[in-house]
Amino acid sequence: MSEKGKTEMVKKRRPAVEEQRTRVKTRMEKIQHKVAVISGKGGVGKSTVTVNLAIAFAMHGFSHSVGILDADITGPCVPKIIGLEGQRLQAGPLGIFPATGPLGIKVVSMDFLLPNQETPVIWRGPIKMKAISQFLSDITWGDLDFLFIDLPPGTGDEPLSIMQLIPEMDGVVIVTIPSEVSQIVVKKAVTFSRQLKIPVIGIVENMSGFVCPECGAEVNIFRVGGGEKIAEDLKIPFLGRIPIDPSICKDSDKGVPFIVEHMNSPAAKAFMRIVKKIESFLGAEEAELTKAGQRSEPDASAKDEENTRGEQSLTEEVTE
Amino acid sequence: MSEKGKTEMVKKRRPAVEEQRTRVKTRMEKIQHKVAVISGKGGVGKSTVTVNLAIAFAMHGFSHSVGILDADITGPCVPKIIGLEGQRLQAGPLGIFPATGPLGIKVVSMDFLLPNQETPVIWRGPIKMKAISQFLSDITWGDLDFLFIDLPPGTGDEPLSIMQLIPEMDGVVIVTIPSEVSQIVVKKAVTFSRQLKIPVIGIVENMSGFVCPECGAEVNIFRVGGGEKIAEDLKIPFLGRIPIDPSICKDSDKGVPFIVEHMNSPAAKAFMRIVKKIESFLGAEEAELTKAGQRSEPDASAKDEENTRGEQSLTEEVTE
Repeated sequence: MSEKGKTEMVKKRRPAVEEQRTRVKTRMEKIQHKVAVISGKGGVGKSTVTVNLAIAFAMHGFSHSVGILDADITGPCVPKIIGLEGQRLQAGPLGIFPATGPLGIKVVSMDFLLPNQETPVIWRGPIKMKAISQFLSDITWGDLDFLFIDLPPGTGDEPLSIMQLIPEMDGVVIVTIPSEVSQIVVKKAVTFSRQLKIPVIGIVENMSGFVCPECGAEVNIFRVGGGEKIAEDLKIPFLGRIPIDPSICKDSDKGVPFIVEHMNSPAAKAFMRIVKKIESFLGAEEAELTKAGQRSEPDASAKDEENTRGEQSLTEEVTE
Repeated sequence: MSEKGKTEMVKKRRPAVEEQRTRVKTRMEKIQHKVAVISGKGGVGKSTVTVNLAIAFAMHGFSHSVGILDADITGPCVPKIIGLEGQRLQAGPLGIFPATGPLGIKVVSMDFLLPNQETPVIWRGPIKMKAISQFLSDITWGDLDFLFIDLPPGTGDEPLSIMQLIPEMDGVVIVTIPSEVSQIVVKKAVTFSRQLKIPVIGIVENMSGFVCPECGAEVNIFRVGGGEKIAEDLKIPFLGRIPIDPSICKDSDKGVPFIVEHMNSPAAKAFMRIVKKIESFLGAEEAELTKAGQRSEPDASAKDEENTRGEQSLTEEVTE
């Protein structure tokens, strides 16, 4: 194609992209806080953390005003964990309505779009992003205090594209397991968040240590302390450790949140301490913004100021 | 762009794609067997299985004729697990030379291409596939008996595109953990392989059960039996269970293969039983081909015949 042809194509495409972004923004306007849960590697418990975070906030006075967006296209498993497996979305003239889970949590999952569980989503990049942005711009979230977004694992173009579609994200929670092999990818996840200029709320070290329920012996299956070490190295907050607990897996398979089902377990207690830190991050942020009189409509300069939290500005490395 | 412009662009692009495929094919011509290791979900031990598979084959009479292609762009961790962290590839006039690991195993990892460990690979879809196919067409593998390919987790367009780049794959090994949540994505991985008409060698159930090293109590952290059940449901071979063993994680962090370091552990023994089944699959396949006189150059019709192993032909659903 000629250079002129290319420029024309880009010109034609840009207003469509902008329009979609504006629509997503309008749909999400009444959501006070948006928090993404990311991980460098898959299989570290990202979805379990997302669901239990949402449950914890809903229990703490935000019943019927919490939502979950399961944007993990590679293997969406939020519906299974929250007990909404097999649900389909209701579409009306106003848009798509989320499914409703326990405590009135509004749930939208990529899984709801699939014809059946056996079918993998094999969409090529550009088609996929088009489908996702269309989907996001159609969801009628309504008034929500919190939306937790379960992003695809890794730091590739999928989580990147989805993050860029969602306006004014408060921050990201990074979930990891303690092994060194996982730490390499955590570094990537932090760089990734900084490139996008989204504050890192902190690191959660999941599957951290194991206490034998029979004899009480401590066995560090995936080692311990790796998440805390990397948080120190990278100078980002460490939110806490969640020990391995077989009931977490059983509860997730049954579709019941473990922090409700096993409220007094060390894992649930550890989780609730993490939730407090996230609440205080969001509260602190809110107080800061209110103080500056920018709560309802943060202007560009405020956003820029906020962005300086990311130490590096590497956006120029992000290829289009 | 006009319809005519589009057609012209596609016409121009097609020979380049074909040329690249031919180059990859030429580079891989002297590799007897190619086995991909896939998983529906990340974090299930796919890379650990790949590395130990390669080590097992190298130990069983194939020293210096085994290779590993770490094609997991999202979080390449083969170099760390095999003790080649920080290596860079040597490039010469003939192409790129793989790094050499223990037992002469030739290793190529996407990680070798990155400037440093902190940098995430944020390439947009089309650019990424271009870089990967370029990369693959430059590697001088030489004569190999076996190449094990660690694919990106999930069943999205990344593993799909990479699988399509590699000619005449013998089959795929699917790794999963026993939890039900993981089973959903295993079904997708099987459908995915069938769509691509690549035989499923079987399912490995990793992190299956745990025996407390102190008191001997059995604790099923991620439950047990899920992999076997799904193999039965989907009528594909079940290769075996690998129990959770903290030394696997420690060895991986140290960069030593656990089947060498902890040869007599139940996990290593379970793994070696799995290896035997994979060996016999590859042997059986070889015998079948030799019988048909197609060993050295399988023709198109033989390939088609082989392809009928996939029960469903769903390729038409795979969008370009």
